[in-house]
Amino acid sequence: MALSSMRKEGKPPADSGLSARLAIRAGAHRGATSGLAPGYVQGNLAILPQALAPDFLRFCQLNPKPCPLIGTSAPGDPRVPDLGEDLDIRTDLSRYRVWKNGELVAEPEDVREFWRDDLVSFVIGCSFSFEEALMADGIEVRHITRGCNVPMYRTSIATQKAGPFHGPMVVSMRPLTPRDAIRAVQITTRFPSVHGAPVHIGKPEMIGIKDIAKPDYGDAVDIGNDELPVFWACGVTPQSVIATVKPEFCITHYPGSMLVTDRKNTEFAIL
Amino acid sequence: MALSSMRKEGKPPADSGLSARLAIRAGAHRGATSGLAPGYVQGNLAILPQALAPDFLRFCQLNPKPCPLIGTSAPGDPRVPDLGEDLDIRTDLSRYRVWKNGELVAEPEDVREFWRDDLVSFVIGCSFSFEEALMADGIEVRHITRGCNVPMYRTSIATQKAGPFHGPMVVSMRPLTPRDAIRAVQITTRFPSVHGAPVHIGKPEMIGIKDIAKPDYGDAVDIGNDELPVFWACGVTPQSVIATVKPEFCITHYPGSMLVTDRKNTEFAIL
Repeated sequence: MALSSMRKEGKPPADSGLSARLAIRAGAHRGATSGLAPGYVQGNLAILPQALAPDFLRFCQLNPKPCPLIGTSAPGDPRVPDLGEDLDIRTDLSRYRVWKNGELVAEPEDVREFWRDDLVSFVIGCSFSFEEALMADGIEVRHITRGCNVPMYRTSIATQKAGPFHGPMVVSMRPLTPRDAIRAVQITTRFPSVHGAPVHIGKPEMIGIKDIAKPDYGDAVDIGNDELPVFWACGVTPQSVIATVKPEFCITHYPGSMLVTDRKNTEFAIL
Repeated sequence: MALSSMRKEGKPPADSGLSARLAIRAGAHRGATSGLAPGYVQGNLAILPQALAPDFLRFCQLNPKPCPLIGTSAPGDPRVPDLGEDLDIRTDLSRYRVWKNGELVAEPEDVREFWRDDLVSFVIGCSFSFEEALMADGIEVRHITRGCNVPMYRTSIATQKAGPFHGPMVVSMRPLTPRDAIRAVQITTRFPSVHGAPVHIGKPEMIGIKDIAKPDYGDAVDIGNDELPVFWACGVTPQSVIATVKPEFCITHYPGSMLVTDRKNTEFAIL
């Protein structure tokens, strides 16, 4: 197929997922991937030992809004061909987190030295895709305007348990005018693979959020008097759940350093 | 076609739009049409002299959310075959209102004696269709549970002017939990011909509603602490606009006495 020949010639399409991954693999791009390869799907990463993989897979299937699985690997295989033929999960993210028994042991830029033959990769959709669709429709995404991280909150919404995996849903919040909130429901409904429609609008206390100004992850953003806080299921949920389980070994992406894929956001629209 | 032969034999399908209209025409059904012929589209009616018809048609086209036109007649023709082959607009509603120069002059059960050769009928979609879809999804529709009329409000949202027709949008309100509000946006988006998605959620003061407990039309309903008021563009808007214009002659349906058509609600779903 064309990708490997393009790579040999050193000419992947500019701004493509592949060119982003090659830049990261070569050490030419460091840090966050937001804004990289516009139009291409980026994903959250969780790599678990095979012994835990069936339960985690079932957890994702039972909780598709916070854990929309967009790609998985065969055990021990660092490739995820569905998401990019040339993709090597060990080298193609700009930074990783390596965990042992729930303790953070390293934050390397490459996990080849940590690789094991029993590791299974799970790639989970990320809100970058639907944020792009919102902005394309003229809707302001506050944390992007403010240049900070999206505010995220642990909620009182329980996930569906699978084996050892359980815990509260984490949500991200974007303040929107009522008119934009309605439009945002319509737009994000089209993208069930990247968290889909909001899970809540307007009454944070109903989902166990005590102080909207104090997110559990990310940064607080201002909410206007003419705006409602709109909440989406968040890909931090599986990370939070994995942290609770404290698996003997686990690799995740470093926050903001997502996997850039060859799939287009538009491919994931159901309408 | 089959309808007239069925009628000759006196056997229209039970609970069909046709059987409802025949019952009304025969005087066997009186009063409100809510709950009649489940699954069939009901419509708001406005009948205007031909001189005003082009402007009113344009008004509807410019304001599709409050004025979703689902059928029109030829001038002087009491039939609207698109909505029912056997339909006679002069006899098939259970009650009408007749207006002269903006004054209500009669509320007859039949308008044959008022008919003129220059009259054009406009049938406008009604919220009964989307309420049926909401309830089919398990969503409680408060005013139906309470057995009262839907609360309606004049807003500060202006309609697009066309000739003499202009004025504020009227909205209807249904209190919903945030979860049901999100689902209701999805469901009603499928039905643009019957008002479509909400126009506002959550902050009545933003659309000029001073006291949610005092609707301008219909009845107040209770709103729980765990609920948001959700607002849809309302088919009372064209009636309110026509009342402002005070046309020399005009016929509308009596509130609650809608035109029952042969079209199915499901036909109007875009997805």
